[in-house]
Amino acid sequence: MSTTAGPDRRARPETRAAILGAAVDLASAEGLEGLTIGRLATETGMSKSGLFRHFGSKEELQLATVEEASRIFVAAVVEPALRATEGEERLRALCDRYIAHLEQQTFAGGCFWGATTAEFDDRPGAVRDAIAGAYGAWTTELARQARLAADADPEQLAFELVSVAQGANSRYRLFGDGDAFARARTAFEGLLAAQRS
Amino acid sequence: MSTTAGPDRRARPETRAAILGAAVDLASAEGLEGLTIGRLATETGMSKSGLFRHFGSKEELQLATVEEASRIFVAAVVEPALRATEGEERLRALCDRYIAHLEQQTFAGGCFWGATTAEFDDRPGAVRDAIAGAYGAWTTELARQARLAADADPEQLAFELVSVAQGANSRYRLFGDGDAFARARTAFEGLLAAQRS
Repeated sequence: MSTTAGPDRRARPETRAAILGAAVDLASAEGLEGLTIGRLATETGMSKSGLFRHFGSKEELQLATVEEASRIFVAAVVEPALRATEGEERLRALCDRYIAHLEQQTFAGGCFWGATTAEFDDRPGAVRDAIAGAYGAWTTELARQARLAADADPEQLAFELVSVAQGANSRYRLFGDGDAFARARTAFEGLLAAQRS
Repeated sequence: MSTTAGPDRRARPETRAAILGAAVDLASAEGLEGLTIGRLATETGMSKSGLFRHFGSKEELQLATVEEASRIFVAAVVEPALRATEGEERLRALCDRYIAHLEQQTFAGGCFWGATTAEFDDRPGAVRDAIAGAYGAWTTELARQARLAADADPEQLAFELVSVAQGANSRYRLFGDGDAFARARTAFEGLLAAQRS
């Protein structure tokens, strides 16, 4: 066991990954504020002292969780869409993959960003900045693809696509599986058809 | 002072209204889970025992807060729109008033429902049901007006209008006053113009 003060970041990477996997699922359902070392110890069956060796503070744990959620989101939504040609086809693929990741429950509690943006938008600090950065990068990539698709107002199209995705997640989480995903796909098609210049 | 067990709901109504006003503002920013009697005592300068006389439990306080937020939302957004004729005109008025209530900071932390739906969608119970009921009533009213406007797919139009409103709130809360409200208005106009049968 390490005798140095502070967290031991040389801990086995597979353990750290397992902890962060549990943290991401927990945060996607209940938010990042309930993500205490004690709660995570209960979820993972690890000791609190063991978790403290990985994450020295609640904020450090929250930041590592946001980073892991970004990695999972990119792997599940962005990377599969890279096979599509940039522009309209890529835009459609990104929107399709976003809905697919909700359907496949990539995160146990639905959209990780839906669960955490509303929670942290009024809490200044590094965690808020990390969440806003990820949400902003997603919007920026959609706008970039809309521009490559020669849309007349790429920022507007990106805003509307992001809004529909967020609305579908809320509708699904609040009212069950019903029609949220089909409605989102209909909306995406309408937006992609209507706004192209 | 009451000598009966349990909260004294005969307390002066103006005091209860002042407490709930502070509770609604706090919850719109930070959610309902952080809304403890202790936190509210700090915010209002009242004693914890005084607050316990009004609200016997955290859940009772949360439910009263959701009820008060509904009352404020109806007064700020729905009632002013009743002057508009039902159908397309009413639909436009409801969307306009929704954006206006964000601009005027009717709730200190932005959209009360944006702050609380993501927080409670995975927490079964009376508070979740109250939030889902209010969110559902808003969507249902938009769909009813879309139907009166003879829209070809009223449920779809309502879903998209609600999504844009939610997206505008997130964009505003995360990235400042920028262009979120103008983008929402542009989106509403596009939806109202495009989807009418």
